[in-house]
Amino acid sequence: MAVYTEVADEELAQFIDSYGLGAVVSCKGIAEGVENTNYLVATASGQFILTLYEKRVARDDLPFFLGLMEHLAAKGLSCPTPVRDREGCNLRELGGRPAALVTFLEGLWLRKPQPRHCHSVGVALARLHLAGQDFAIPRVNALGPAGWQPLFERFRGFADSVTPGLADTIEREMAAILADWPQQLPAGVIHADLFPDNVFFRGDQLSGLIDFYFACNDMFAYDIAVCLNAWCFEPDVTFNRDKGVALLAGYQSVRPLTGPERVAVPTLARGAALRFLLTRAHDWVYTPADALVVKHDPIPYLQRLVFHSSVVAEGSAATYGLEDQP
Amino acid sequence: MAVYTEVADEELAQFIDSYGLGAVVSCKGIAEGVENTNYLVATASGQFILTLYEKRVARDDLPFFLGLMEHLAAKGLSCPTPVRDREGCNLRELGGRPAALVTFLEGLWLRKPQPRHCHSVGVALARLHLAGQDFAIPRVNALGPAGWQPLFERFRGFADSVTPGLADTIEREMAAILADWPQQLPAGVIHADLFPDNVFFRGDQLSGLIDFYFACNDMFAYDIAVCLNAWCFEPDVTFNRDKGVALLAGYQSVRPLTGPERVAVPTLARGAALRFLLTRAHDWVYTPADALVVKHDPIPYLQRLVFHSSVVAEGSAATYGLEDQP
Repeated sequence: MAVYTEVADEELAQFIDSYGLGAVVSCKGIAEGVENTNYLVATASGQFILTLYEKRVARDDLPFFLGLMEHLAAKGLSCPTPVRDREGCNLRELGGRPAALVTFLEGLWLRKPQPRHCHSVGVALARLHLAGQDFAIPRVNALGPAGWQPLFERFRGFADSVTPGLADTIEREMAAILADWPQQLPAGVIHADLFPDNVFFRGDQLSGLIDFYFACNDMFAYDIAVCLNAWCFEPDVTFNRDKGVALLAGYQSVRPLTGPERVAVPTLARGAALRFLLTRAHDWVYTPADALVVKHDPIPYLQRLVFHSSVVAEGSAATYGLEDQP
Repeated sequence: MAVYTEVADEELAQFIDSYGLGAVVSCKGIAEGVENTNYLVATASGQFILTLYEKRVARDDLPFFLGLMEHLAAKGLSCPTPVRDREGCNLRELGGRPAALVTFLEGLWLRKPQPRHCHSVGVALARLHLAGQDFAIPRVNALGPAGWQPLFERFRGFADSVTPGLADTIEREMAAILADWPQQLPAGVIHADLFPDNVFFRGDQLSGLIDFYFACNDMFAYDIAVCLNAWCFEPDVTFNRDKGVALLAGYQSVRPLTGPERVAVPTLARGAALRFLLTRAHDWVYTPADALVVKHDPIPYLQRLVFHSSVVAEGSAATYGLEDQP
């Protein structure tokens, strides 16, 4: 739930004026995104998203995020593109926050994605991985395995208040996942948070990807693992194999997985479930009760984690539909 | 902070299809308005606001609200206009809620209105009063004097938790205001909630009025009194006489006040301050701490109430700038 920072009229007018896009015609706070303040701004030149970066986003990371969006857009990937002001800057300041203006991407995010949509997401994810290969700025995955233990320590003492036994489960799972974690898989820029609300469709056509604020350098197959968690479970947290088959087939139609990647998928999926369980449980414990954000329930990620652990125990990625792939 | 009701893709597509406006191009939840869920929807035909009416709005009142917007728009007032579907209906259902599609109004609301803007608001308010005169459906002001006591009773026991002594102050003020309340002033359809966030400007030009969901039949001068409270106080809750002069002059340039209306302004302003103090204090006490709404601080309305009481004691509306008017 966004709009943390209110912007005064004259400030907004001056800010928009610096881009030479004409005067502001309308400006609406958008109730999406939990990290930043977003306004949908219309000028004579069209529609734009104005983002004010709140404290949770490190200012030093902004050149990576904005540069990546520009890089990907230049490679033909459909994503919001930062607009540069008259002086050539894509990062300014507004309302005391770092601020950027990006192009508006048409489309809707799907509340109930179907297998055909998962296929499109797989295709788009692989294209993103290829398009990002020659992007020059690196960024560490702060929520990769090295970040799990410190994050866990921050709420370990309260974990069992989320659900009894959670601390023990996390400890046991983390140890098992870290022992299995692959090291030498193909890597590059990954999105790292490609949930349904970050993928827009017009009808059945994928129209673009948004929200690159978790993007970083990591293994490509980890990004697939995030998507298996984000796209292929039903509301009752059962895995939908048709969606898994479609997602993986879409991805491999652009970039076939290597043998070691295929073997690693169950462990990566288990790790991705743990990563979202950790952040959700952390935020569940720490978000003040009166905060203007929707708290994401951690439990569905505990359930996913249990599911992936059983797949790892079976020793085969067939459950995800990977054995059906070329 | 809106978006209480999520809408599924297919449902939205079907809903929009019934208006014959082309397919949905984008749909964003808007983080404004505390009563209803609002989406900004774009189709091939343009932009629209899709409103899902939440429980706080009585379904029986919707024909009044929607009919009033149509009536005012037909009279040339710039306001959102309900769109009728292929069967001629302007009220449908979506996501289990009553829902309407209205035209999108360009413009921004002013965070720091100046006297010249207050003048425009006065003009627009008077035009609204004239345009609404032949609207056929009546609606009682649920937050008029008859509603104050029952509303107060709901939180009286907790009032001093908002600020010590509040219960006594409200009781004393309410009795004094009710004793003075005028009865026979010119009346008709009033907006009853014309705060800055409900008035859009493009540059210095007022582009339209929104949010008619408190509109009702009551004295015109009470609507002016609401605006004096809403537009003419500075952030430190001092009254800005220049703004009062401008608002009243703007109004009277379209519809001059009668003698009895001029005399009643201080009492009406005091009553309007009490009305907003009551609803804000009520909501302050009852809004769950984890609700996704901004709780409005009641204290600035207690301060306004004290100010208006002193004006009433002085026995003159000159403080508001009314003596400067023709």
